[in-house]
Amino acid sequence: MKKYGLALIGGIAVVVAGWFLVDAKPVVAKTEQSTAVFDSQGKLKLPTGFREWVFVGAPLTPNSLNNGKANFPEYHNVYIEKKNVDAYLKTGTFPEGTVIIKELTRVLNPTFPDGSRSEPSGRGYFNGELNGIDASVKDTKRFAKTNGWGYFTFGHHPRPYQQTAEEAPATECASCHQSFVAKTDMTWIQFYPLLRDKPE
Amino acid sequence: MKKYGLALIGGIAVVVAGWFLVDAKPVVAKTEQSTAVFDSQGKLKLPTGFREWVFVGAPLTPNSLNNGKANFPEYHNVYIEKKNVDAYLKTGTFPEGTVIIKELTRVLNPTFPDGSRSEPSGRGYFNGELNGIDASVKDTKRFAKTNGWGYFTFGHHPRPYQQTAEEAPATECASCHQSFVAKTDMTWIQFYPLLRDKPE
Repeated sequence: MKKYGLALIGGIAVVVAGWFLVDAKPVVAKTEQSTAVFDSQGKLKLPTGFREWVFVGAPLTPNSLNNGKANFPEYHNVYIEKKNVDAYLKTGTFPEGTVIIKELTRVLNPTFPDGSRSEPSGRGYFNGELNGIDASVKDTKRFAKTNGWGYFTFGHHPRPYQQTAEEAPATECASCHQSFVAKTDMTWIQFYPLLRDKPE
Repeated sequence: MKKYGLALIGGIAVVVAGWFLVDAKPVVAKTEQSTAVFDSQGKLKLPTGFREWVFVGAPLTPNSLNNGKANFPEYHNVYIEKKNVDAYLKTGTFPEGTVIIKELTRVLNPTFPDGSRSEPSGRGYFNGELNGIDASVKDTKRFAKTNGWGYFTFGHHPRPYQQTAEEAPATECASCHQSFVAKTDMTWIQFYPLLRDKPE
């Protein structure tokens, strides 16, 4: 009897262990999504999972304040994974493999010449349609020529976005980062309160 | 021998199961942070963990476009936990216990009369100092008088924020939500592309 009892306990325990393995799977998958994935041609696959990264800021360059043609129309919502935010706060630099996402959204139907509109909360700007994704990836070997960062655009237009993107020419993205923010690891820390100001 | 073998397997399996239990703890802790916590006087404790919730939009009502006195100065960054975003997309209503966070940030040192400034990405608005937190909590029993939602402000000023907040008078918050967005579960879905537009 004792033998069967032990076999039973062993069996139950294996089942329980198996259940936790299954339960743990989504966490593993989430970690994988946060890594830059390149296809066989060296194109970056559209990152997923960034909606649960830390939102660090939303510079807004309305078309209406930029002769109808903003470089990034119009909100640029920026996301960085929490572990990389924490590392930057500790070291002043981003770890290898850091991915930064910039998702654009249009402003909602402007009624004033400056692109703003009036709502119960006041006159200002409100989020219109999602309008494109850019990504930057830190890989000091792969992108050695551009200070360790590669830049990618998945299109500045409403969804669906491109599923893959090749590295943008240095003149299109990296050169501006090199000119203005080389000292802050090629990123616009001056616009991100969580990274710029003293921690909470 | 067989008996000891089974006991050993059983023991290992229990240890393995235990390890997965321990490993699962951080997820549980994160879930706890996302729940509204009230103190003995019924005040809401300042929610934590929201920086890893889903950012859904950033209405911007610059002081400069609102006679120097915006109701919410000036960016209002809004966060909702992913499971509640998913539930809304499925059902058109938020689950009991949903917490919505609105964190304010000032605009960065304006140089134009409309509150904007010029940067390499164009003329517009950029995130200044973090400037306060408001929260709303869905609890149809506790807040039955205000359509099931309670509203709280932890101060509209730079950090440190208040650590607890009592429910705001209905005339201060709930009445505006009731007047304008009662049909979308008291929330400003029309400004949140992920909730307003068709899913990705």
